[in-house]
Amino acid sequence: MRNLLLTLAYDGRAYHGFQIQNNADTVQARLQEALALTLPSLPDIKGCSRTDTGVHARMFCVSLRTESTIGCDRLPAALNSRLPQDIAVLSCREVPDDFHARYSVVSKRYRYEILNRPIRDPFLSGRAALWQYPIDEELLHREAQVLVGRHDFSAFCSAGGSVEDKVRTVSELSVSRCGDMVYIDIEADGFLYNMVRIIVGTLLDINRGRIAPGELARVLESCDRSCAGFTAPPDGLYLEIVRY
Amino acid sequence: MRNLLLTLAYDGRAYHGFQIQNNADTVQARLQEALALTLPSLPDIKGCSRTDTGVHARMFCVSLRTESTIGCDRLPAALNSRLPQDIAVLSCREVPDDFHARYSVVSKRYRYEILNRPIRDPFLSGRAALWQYPIDEELLHREAQVLVGRHDFSAFCSAGGSVEDKVRTVSELSVSRCGDMVYIDIEADGFLYNMVRIIVGTLLDINRGRIAPGELARVLESCDRSCAGFTAPPDGLYLEIVRY
Repeated sequence: MRNLLLTLAYDGRAYHGFQIQNNADTVQARLQEALALTLPSLPDIKGCSRTDTGVHARMFCVSLRTESTIGCDRLPAALNSRLPQDIAVLSCREVPDDFHARYSVVSKRYRYEILNRPIRDPFLSGRAALWQYPIDEELLHREAQVLVGRHDFSAFCSAGGSVEDKVRTVSELSVSRCGDMVYIDIEADGFLYNMVRIIVGTLLDINRGRIAPGELARVLESCDRSCAGFTAPPDGLYLEIVRY
Repeated sequence: MRNLLLTLAYDGRAYHGFQIQNNADTVQARLQEALALTLPSLPDIKGCSRTDTGVHARMFCVSLRTESTIGCDRLPAALNSRLPQDIAVLSCREVPDDFHARYSVVSKRYRYEILNRPIRDPFLSGRAALWQYPIDEELLHREAQVLVGRHDFSAFCSAGGSVEDKVRTVSELSVSRCGDMVYIDIEADGFLYNMVRIIVGTLLDINRGRIAPGELARVLESCDRSCAGFTAPPDGLYLEIVRY
């Protein structure tokens, strides 16, 4: 029995996230269809995270056990020929027997992309959040640094998550600009339900004065979701890197 | 009566080109719907070119005459609220009475984008042509220079065009690379039916040895479509700049 690690990328606009659901199209459902046509029996597959409806992945990892002897150099092309154009298997490699795409994760990195100008870009529909009012990326970068470190992120977690322990370690949080695009990059050892999107919404609420500069430490300490800002839309969110 | 120039951008994947047609969705049809809801009467609109099914525009110009007094600063937002997300009006300005979006064009610039790697990118589906075999962009750039200048481009024109005069002046043709992306940029005073896509297909046929290096001058002189290469798919083609 081999344990294989697949890396994927997908445009999440058409999918209700990665994880399989009844009555909703998901990336996992499409991947399982392709695997069923390629391997002798359908393996049980483990994804590195769930991702919400409409969220994208430039790198997403899946592990699976199979008795198939198909070469790691051939499996991506075989699967890609059976996957829709908005999902791609980028690579495949054999991993140790105890490797698990979710539990072996050391850290993940997300990027949130904002188009900051008055008029939308038709090429970024569903791919970036449009924010019409000017963003002061240097202010937001400075403000955001209080979230770096090991903290209870309950204030940045939507109801509905099943996780008890809300302590996570954010190793990096940066806000930067390139032309009209503002990027918010967050790396952590784990993420709570909607955590990136609530952090982004809270930073945008600081930018427009709904939350005062300097207040972010108190929002964090409150452990109260109602003290944080809105949940930014999924359009701009990309899972960028998964580290093992 | 004011004469207005609108600049648009659109993702062409969902449309059968710009120009209105029976029984097919086009950018012009969507724009006219939005104009009918915004202006007191539907104006006759002139586009700078037709564009094929699936071709994109980062800049596309439309002129129209209207008795409306709506400000040029307000019209783009009013139209964008009534247009689908994959079309955007970027700007509006008043132009002299004799200005015509098509006949006043001095030159247009197209870019053809190729993803040159073995595996597709789900974020470029319909947005770039995938070409799996390595492209020698320096060779193709050198070869392509024989097309620069004033020539009869009959060899690079699909049947079905209604234009008699096939002489055009190509002022620039460059092939360049940035990472996995290869860009073919062509500027000319006018373009024949499928001209950019046939030039791109012919260059790719040189790259894979179906047409010998040095043969491009003879293809041009032949004025015979069957001597040129294949018609590259519309996915990678963008109208970039329209100069007046």
